[in-house]
Amino acid sequence: MTAAGPLSGLRVIDLGQVYLGPYCGLMFALMGAEVIKVEPPGGDGIRGIAGGRENPAAMMLNSSKQSVTLDLQSDEGRSALLALADTADVLIENSRPGTMEKLGLGWKTLSARNPRLVMGSGKGYAADSVYRDAPAMDFPIQALTGLMSVTGFPDGSPVKCGAAITDFLGGIHLFGGIMAALHARGTTGLGDFVQIAMQDVAHHALASNISSFLLAPDGFADRAGNSQAVLKVAPYDLFPARDGQVAIMCLNDRHWQQLSRAMGRPDLAEDPELAEGPARCARRAEVDGWVSDWTTGHTRAEIFAALSDARVPGAPVRTLAEVVSDDDMRTRGMIHDLPHPDLGTIPVPGLPMTFARHDRVPPRPAPAAGVDTARVLGALRQAGLSTPSEDSN
Amino acid sequence: MTAAGPLSGLRVIDLGQVYLGPYCGLMFALMGAEVIKVEPPGGDGIRGIAGGRENPAAMMLNSSKQSVTLDLQSDEGRSALLALADTADVLIENSRPGTMEKLGLGWKTLSARNPRLVMGSGKGYAADSVYRDAPAMDFPIQALTGLMSVTGFPDGSPVKCGAAITDFLGGIHLFGGIMAALHARGTTGLGDFVQIAMQDVAHHALASNISSFLLAPDGFADRAGNSQAVLKVAPYDLFPARDGQVAIMCLNDRHWQQLSRAMGRPDLAEDPELAEGPARCARRAEVDGWVSDWTTGHTRAEIFAALSDARVPGAPVRTLAEVVSDDDMRTRGMIHDLPHPDLGTIPVPGLPMTFARHDRVPPRPAPAAGVDTARVLGALRQAGLSTPSEDSN
Repeated sequence: MTAAGPLSGLRVIDLGQVYLGPYCGLMFALMGAEVIKVEPPGGDGIRGIAGGRENPAAMMLNSSKQSVTLDLQSDEGRSALLALADTADVLIENSRPGTMEKLGLGWKTLSARNPRLVMGSGKGYAADSVYRDAPAMDFPIQALTGLMSVTGFPDGSPVKCGAAITDFLGGIHLFGGIMAALHARGTTGLGDFVQIAMQDVAHHALASNISSFLLAPDGFADRAGNSQAVLKVAPYDLFPARDGQVAIMCLNDRHWQQLSRAMGRPDLAEDPELAEGPARCARRAEVDGWVSDWTTGHTRAEIFAALSDARVPGAPVRTLAEVVSDDDMRTRGMIHDLPHPDLGTIPVPGLPMTFARHDRVPPRPAPAAGVDTARVLGALRQAGLSTPSEDSN
Repeated sequence: MTAAGPLSGLRVIDLGQVYLGPYCGLMFALMGAEVIKVEPPGGDGIRGIAGGRENPAAMMLNSSKQSVTLDLQSDEGRSALLALADTADVLIENSRPGTMEKLGLGWKTLSARNPRLVMGSGKGYAADSVYRDAPAMDFPIQALTGLMSVTGFPDGSPVKCGAAITDFLGGIHLFGGIMAALHARGTTGLGDFVQIAMQDVAHHALASNISSFLLAPDGFADRAGNSQAVLKVAPYDLFPARDGQVAIMCLNDRHWQQLSRAMGRPDLAEDPELAEGPARCARRAEVDGWVSDWTTGHTRAEIFAALSDARVPGAPVRTLAEVVSDDDMRTRGMIHDLPHPDLGTIPVPGLPMTFARHDRVPPRPAPAAGVDTARVLGALRQAGLSTPSEDSN
């Protein structure tokens, strides 16, 4: 075990904005790389989105990074960025398509100066997509890719997945792609230009839905609520508990038998007319009623414990307030309560993976915009690299 | 540009099941690694889940892999797996917690034999979680992590994100973690044991929701339907088009002015009483009505084009049937129509990232269970590695 993370020694310039780029940079930072977040003079747009107060999300996604503010619209800002990129292993960006090229900071330029650089770009729509000129954010991407169409109840409207899921899918795919390019660099000595699009990673996450569609395309209902779209399995839904709802799924007949016994209904487990999924589906209202009869008498915690003992997949539906106050996530280092001068305590994510050979290092609080500008640019100057005068910042 | 992928030369043993492990292995395969899918004699459980027919999802997530069937309950199967792991750079698994250890195939054993091996394990709940003994699948994980609580309409029930999103988030995080361990191996010469849990990666994808909750915890509504939970922005919703629905979001006041002009309503753009988000939120029914008046007269494609021209984020809500038949995804190599002997043509995902220095290699059709067993084990024998007799398969 070593206190240094698996990516210590790497230097990453993180031009990420909002969620996608910053989440990618966060993975590098939490694994021990030196990550320099480069922001416009006013800071990454996400910092101020919450009506003048600093946005907790910016604190959650930029921990363990340094912050340098540069005005990339100015010659001095651009030359500082070029100097930074010359010293870096990785540069991450998720600006609008064409922005980096317009600034004279595209991959061809950066790569000609530093052939070992891996540049990672995350966009909503891919550069070769017919939609490439459309403004992209998580909400429209969920609409176009079908993610929204498969979410919600059959008799209701499509609804977005409430999390900005395509941003996070995008950010972690970008991280994976950059790591693959770094791997190849170990052989070739050359960096690479890695591009991902939210539209593509969202599409691939629909593999199970597309598979269900292919099996029964005629009259296919995209949305199944909290049930199964195609498989003839039941019970599979949310059920009412004394203090909320629980998810219970019997993916196979064994689950049903185990659930019935956990409910104190061995008669149901042994009823041959209920033994198979299609039969239980045909009598779904009745089956769900038996399950509800059991769940309504218990708390979510009691039901979760009983399901776990019975080896039946299920869990409480938890609210955000419950999730944010989860002790187990704190004990396990998945949430760190870090101080912020104005916001108080922020529940900052820990690295969502463990390594047997590396200690998990707790995150350091996210920097205020620009706190590291003078030091980082001063070090570049000392190293004899071309940099702007300090007063440009 | 080289035809070899960035991960060519790596050898990966993919014990993945269903979605999480196989998606991780798929990334390796599509980037040029040699990926050997190891399945039980009847094949990965997902192959048969569709009522006797082979499951298209298994074809979509196992392209470009080889398949070896081994009975890991037998001494011969286990010794073949050990011999395979001895030759590998990476071993992926997402079996139930404790399974690998019970089989005598845990990391300590594998690592003692092959210290360069990186073993990647993906689980629903982490090994150190209080929930570690609960059976985990995407549905209960969405419930417990709050992903379900933030999805749906404020006056309706929580609903799952229709995609098995925590499986795919898990798979790509596992890939990223394994790549980080391979990076560290370049310095230390030693492999590592990488573990991820769906509960953790799902939690981190809720950063923007948790941030919104922290800003206004009192009376916070977890679910906002297709609107914004906290930001005072409007219009931001789905709107009815002639042939379906469109997502339109005005995240800032500039978007509103651009949208109004695109709708042929410059009067709205210039109305000072509508200039700011909070004012438009207060008159939301009226504002949404003006937008609907415009959208109902047009097709989704017309609206999407107008929004793109006006630089307003928005997109059609597309059905799965539309997504599956998307020509642009085919042109761009994101969907490959590959033949399957029984199922016909399957829309197989392409690598969701591009590299400037590597051609994108089209996927090869997924193997039938066990087609490569004799060849792969024969090669191990020829190399003088301990293997079982061929008739054990």
